[in-house]
Amino acid sequence: MHTIFELQELLENAIRKVEYPAHPAKLYEPLSYIMRLGGKRIRPVLVLLSSEMFNSDVTIAIEAALAIETFHNFTLIHDDIMDNAPLRRGNDTVHVKWGVNNAILSGDVMMVEANKHLTNLDTKVLKAALNCFNTTAQGVCEGQQLDMEFEQRADVTIPEYINMICLKTAVLVGGSMKLGAIVGGAQAEDAELLYTFGENFGLAFQLQDDILDVYGDPLKFGKQVGGDIISNKQTFLLLKLKELASAADLEKLNAQLSNTDFPTKIQVLTSLYNKYKIRELAVMEMQHSLNTAFAALDQVNIDEEKKAALTQLSRSLIDREH
Amino acid sequence: MHTIFELQELLENAIRKVEYPAHPAKLYEPLSYIMRLGGKRIRPVLVLLSSEMFNSDVTIAIEAALAIETFHNFTLIHDDIMDNAPLRRGNDTVHVKWGVNNAILSGDVMMVEANKHLTNLDTKVLKAALNCFNTTAQGVCEGQQLDMEFEQRADVTIPEYINMICLKTAVLVGGSMKLGAIVGGAQAEDAELLYTFGENFGLAFQLQDDILDVYGDPLKFGKQVGGDIISNKQTFLLLKLKELASAADLEKLNAQLSNTDFPTKIQVLTSLYNKYKIRELAVMEMQHSLNTAFAALDQVNIDEEKKAALTQLSRSLIDREH
Repeated sequence: MHTIFELQELLENAIRKVEYPAHPAKLYEPLSYIMRLGGKRIRPVLVLLSSEMFNSDVTIAIEAALAIETFHNFTLIHDDIMDNAPLRRGNDTVHVKWGVNNAILSGDVMMVEANKHLTNLDTKVLKAALNCFNTTAQGVCEGQQLDMEFEQRADVTIPEYINMICLKTAVLVGGSMKLGAIVGGAQAEDAELLYTFGENFGLAFQLQDDILDVYGDPLKFGKQVGGDIISNKQTFLLLKLKELASAADLEKLNAQLSNTDFPTKIQVLTSLYNKYKIRELAVMEMQHSLNTAFAALDQVNIDEEKKAALTQLSRSLIDREH
Repeated sequence: MHTIFELQELLENAIRKVEYPAHPAKLYEPLSYIMRLGGKRIRPVLVLLSSEMFNSDVTIAIEAALAIETFHNFTLIHDDIMDNAPLRRGNDTVHVKWGVNNAILSGDVMMVEANKHLTNLDTKVLKAALNCFNTTAQGVCEGQQLDMEFEQRADVTIPEYINMICLKTAVLVGGSMKLGAIVGGAQAEDAELLYTFGENFGLAFQLQDDILDVYGDPLKFGKQVGGDIISNKQTFLLLKLKELASAADLEKLNAQLSNTDFPTKIQVLTSLYNKYKIRELAVMEMQHSLNTAFAALDQVNIDEEKKAALTQLSRSLIDREH
């Protein structure tokens, strides 16, 4: 088995070797651009890791890993248009650099490139891999749609929120693991268990993100602590607070939504979160997802030692401070 | 063999039976909406027709036909955003009805739906079908990119224009025919010949479109005669005129570009076209493409009678007056 670091290396090399057509330049340049902005490459590494549990030749899963990473980056191009986001990983977003129309079309052709990677898989696993990929891609689109709709609604419930982040984030983590398992030749049952692991792990990861935004160490957290509070982002924490707060505290909360004195806004919200033990509730929810994830992993019918790398990676991701 | 009419019926029934998920409603409603706006369904009928040349059970090609029609409609949603078009087949475009962000995302999920149709094909033909489909989809994106870029350029040459309409329109016609042949079990060589037929026929069809815009019978032509002239659209006719016109006539032409007296503009341009026999040159170019198309069809290694329906459909499409 390879280490996570070795898999990342393998993947970065594979990404560097992908060649898009030279013309039309403006159509294809954004693809190389966004693929080379980096990122943690968690999803494609999970594809490789998952495949290697069932097949010692990890190279058979590289095209599947590239398909997932290419698809993920395609969604980033289109999401950034919809969110009107100026920056992606500290650099101009594609639509800022090339214009909105160009970004729509480059995203479209990037989706085709993802499918081309997938089509390079062995014929034996192709149909199952495509079914997994298409279901995943569809879920991600549904998640983004719900995310956009929820921004216009003040009455989003916790179950609705969990469903949305599940579709927008966790389904792709689960889909990556299932795809890797399929390519590695896993039994359908094991592939499904890895899907369950990935989906619940992805959910826990997203909840941890919500928690770190408020409670992360400013010295270690990569983004501005309180960024979600400043932008009134509907996170698990905010929705849970709305659910539990007294009428007086709700009023206090609502008064802050338009406050442009951000340090005060962050302080007031954080003290409300503390008062209602929102952090503890979020950690419990996260722990619940993690338990479901690891219970599924336990059931996967392979040697425990083959699960070690995955367990280690997922623990380190959840224990992260940024 | 079925008649064209029977194939159209088969296809309309299949389209009516496709069910998209109910939620999120705003994500999926645009898919049913645009699929039900109608259109000639030429591309998916060509998939069926092409398959039936090699396999008497035409139902095996329905999912491939649906993939092509779904993909085509996805490109219409995104093209209409890029072109800022208010109307599609006389109805509101998707982005007018649901907003731009929604239209981007519905287009994306529609591309996934196209791939889902394709994945339903028999495993035996799946990889070849996907390769054909992905190459086609990529070409269509390249064509749309060139079309957008050419709108900003005054020095587009005839070969560049032919290449652009080839990618934007003809590649999908060729791809539809090749896909049908693959699904029907054709030899690779025959599938390639049908691609050549389709691509050249698609080119001829587009050139006929350019000609009809100026020389169509106003009583039979569905759109406004001279629409391309009014909007200064770079067609084969306009580019050829620019190539051949004397300095004085070029000046006359350029003076018309900003003329808002449309009847005069149409009259001046048409008389210039007549003076330089542009119609005849366009017909020659179209005839050249048709000859290449039918020469390829001649070489397809099946009974001549099996080619009859295709020959009949393509002749009727080229001899159309609208």
